[in-house]
Amino acid sequence: MEIYLDNSATTKVCREAADAMMNMLTNNYGNPSSLHKKGTQALRALENSREIVANSLSVSKDEIYFTSSGTTANNTAIFGAVSANRSRGNRIVTSALEHPSVNEAMKRLEQQGFEVIRLRPDTTGAFSAQELMNAVNQRTVLVSIMAVNNELGTINPINNIKTAVRRANSPALIHVDAVQAFGKIPVNPTKAGIDLLTVSSHKIHGPKGAGALYVRKGVQLQPYIVGGGQEKRLYSGTEAMPAIVGFAEAVKNLPDIGRELVEIRSLRDNFVREAAKIGGVHINSSPDALPYIINMSVLGIPSQTMVNALSEAGIYVSAGSACKKGHRSEVLKAVGLSPQRMDSAIRISLSRYTTRQDMEETAEAINRIVERIRR
Amino acid sequence: MEIYLDNSATTKVCREAADAMMNMLTNNYGNPSSLHKKGTQALRALENSREIVANSLSVSKDEIYFTSSGTTANNTAIFGAVSANRSRGNRIVTSALEHPSVNEAMKRLEQQGFEVIRLRPDTTGAFSAQELMNAVNQRTVLVSIMAVNNELGTINPINNIKTAVRRANSPALIHVDAVQAFGKIPVNPTKAGIDLLTVSSHKIHGPKGAGALYVRKGVQLQPYIVGGGQEKRLYSGTEAMPAIVGFAEAVKNLPDIGRELVEIRSLRDNFVREAAKIGGVHINSSPDALPYIINMSVLGIPSQTMVNALSEAGIYVSAGSACKKGHRSEVLKAVGLSPQRMDSAIRISLSRYTTRQDMEETAEAINRIVERIRR
Repeated sequence: MEIYLDNSATTKVCREAADAMMNMLTNNYGNPSSLHKKGTQALRALENSREIVANSLSVSKDEIYFTSSGTTANNTAIFGAVSANRSRGNRIVTSALEHPSVNEAMKRLEQQGFEVIRLRPDTTGAFSAQELMNAVNQRTVLVSIMAVNNELGTINPINNIKTAVRRANSPALIHVDAVQAFGKIPVNPTKAGIDLLTVSSHKIHGPKGAGALYVRKGVQLQPYIVGGGQEKRLYSGTEAMPAIVGFAEAVKNLPDIGRELVEIRSLRDNFVREAAKIGGVHINSSPDALPYIINMSVLGIPSQTMVNALSEAGIYVSAGSACKKGHRSEVLKAVGLSPQRMDSAIRISLSRYTTRQDMEETAEAINRIVERIRR
Repeated sequence: MEIYLDNSATTKVCREAADAMMNMLTNNYGNPSSLHKKGTQALRALENSREIVANSLSVSKDEIYFTSSGTTANNTAIFGAVSANRSRGNRIVTSALEHPSVNEAMKRLEQQGFEVIRLRPDTTGAFSAQELMNAVNQRTVLVSIMAVNNELGTINPINNIKTAVRRANSPALIHVDAVQAFGKIPVNPTKAGIDLLTVSSHKIHGPKGAGALYVRKGVQLQPYIVGGGQEKRLYSGTEAMPAIVGFAEAVKNLPDIGRELVEIRSLRDNFVREAAKIGGVHINSSPDALPYIINMSVLGIPSQTMVNALSEAGIYVSAGSACKKGHRSEVLKAVGLSPQRMDSAIRISLSRYTTRQDMEETAEAINRIVERIRR
């Protein structure tokens, strides 16, 4: 038996995406830059994929740029925006809870002389709109804030960023890392006044190896990865066609977001009720968080011990995010958890393939492990 | 009927690689950074892939870093080397015939104040060892030269670079883009004294979406793509496991290089003999070039006309490299071809799947097209 509950780290590829990839590998294997029939056939698959991703975000096809991952999309957005906007100021506003692909980029920019303001989260992990207002000024060239936190599931009020930027009369571009939000809550960059938005394939049952960056029409970025000029010069390198087509196929097979959210919320609520019966359990995710992510602590049982014990039972959860192994979570620190809760935190992350039985068995397994260890 | 002769642009994925990828997509789909069984299983596949690629280059496993493409490997090598070496000088030596992922990086570095020396090729497209000696000095921080040119197939004397660097008493790191050489001629960076070497999956019947950078033990690079710290911090982002495993599988299935070279050379020589019977045909590749690449001109017939006519007949060749569509080739310009020859150049690139019949039919098809157009 396997119960995979680490879907915020990565997901199983859906059958439709795998089949579409197989076709790209052995049949439609041309290079989209090639000018013969085999090239134009690949190019059609590329542009068709672009359209599918664009439609899912309610944006135009010309505004979608494929990259090789959420990380390369985030790097391309951040370094590209700042390089293009350098003359206008040197302040950047971000949150203290960003994914490392944003946070490490920010550290790099600090070394280069940029002033990086990191908004402190409230106890749920959300940034405060008021703090944002105070932080953005006329010399701010970029605001980069994630839509959903990857460890807690906290949903940020990203629709408020545009107002803050406008009120401050700031030239700042607005970037949102929507990797954890995409496919799970409605994401509409145009409505929210977002300039740059990152999504990734492998969190939505597409393959690892593809991401996309939305760039609002008219926004100029300096390319970060340079070369043959693919993706309208923004992201060079032969397009990873199998992964891109698999990504699009996964997008096409996303369920109705609203209905799925109701289903997942019910799974989450049941699980939380069951887990609460186990002594020493604390739920770290806010009740308003994305229900796909349940961060919880079982006091006295180190995260890794619990992850290993569950893994032995064929249940796969995470000891935080998979992106920074071995370190105490910056995110949990930032929301002010006690050391005891931090050191015993695990993240259970669901997907549309998760069943009621999966969650019941997981609660039971945790209970058994707790009893065994505490005895 | 399809005859695919654009293998220097990209290749059909071999069955073994496609099957291995399928397994990664739907079964071994964990994140190698995850600490549960599903993660460690993926990690094993990653490290196994690393070992296969390392063995093929006769280097240590620790010296191989996966990237998402040859382009990202080249960018990582070049920007990473000069950032780490900045205090030691500001001269870079490269050739005038590099792939855009090297050449565009050089242009970026020139904008940042680096002095970039571009070695002029001889008429075959090879750089001159003497010119290299003259160019490298004590302030040179990087020498970057490709092993095999992607448009002509010219083999560069990359084994001479180390001597030039040593004689000049230069701190320069040596980078070689071996994308077109890998799997076709022996590539041994240790023997050649190379510090950094780029290879790519999709030129050797592996999938698009994976590349690798060899970094000699002890060489320090500043990471270019930053984030979760994957690939020992050198190339962040969740590893593109399906593509990486497919890459390794393609490497495992490479034929004996020497034997294959004999076979391809025979195909090339036969083809060149046939083609020479067609009036106005000039072979632009040197007889010493890698026989996998045949660059030729059919005077009076524009490249694109020939590519299209062949494509109509189900034969896929290139009008130069696939990487810079629509532009007159910088490479052919640099080796001093006449405008007539440049404007009628096509590239026929072979693979181990190419048969004698494929080549005969291609020569016949070119002949038919020439007769039709000239009439």
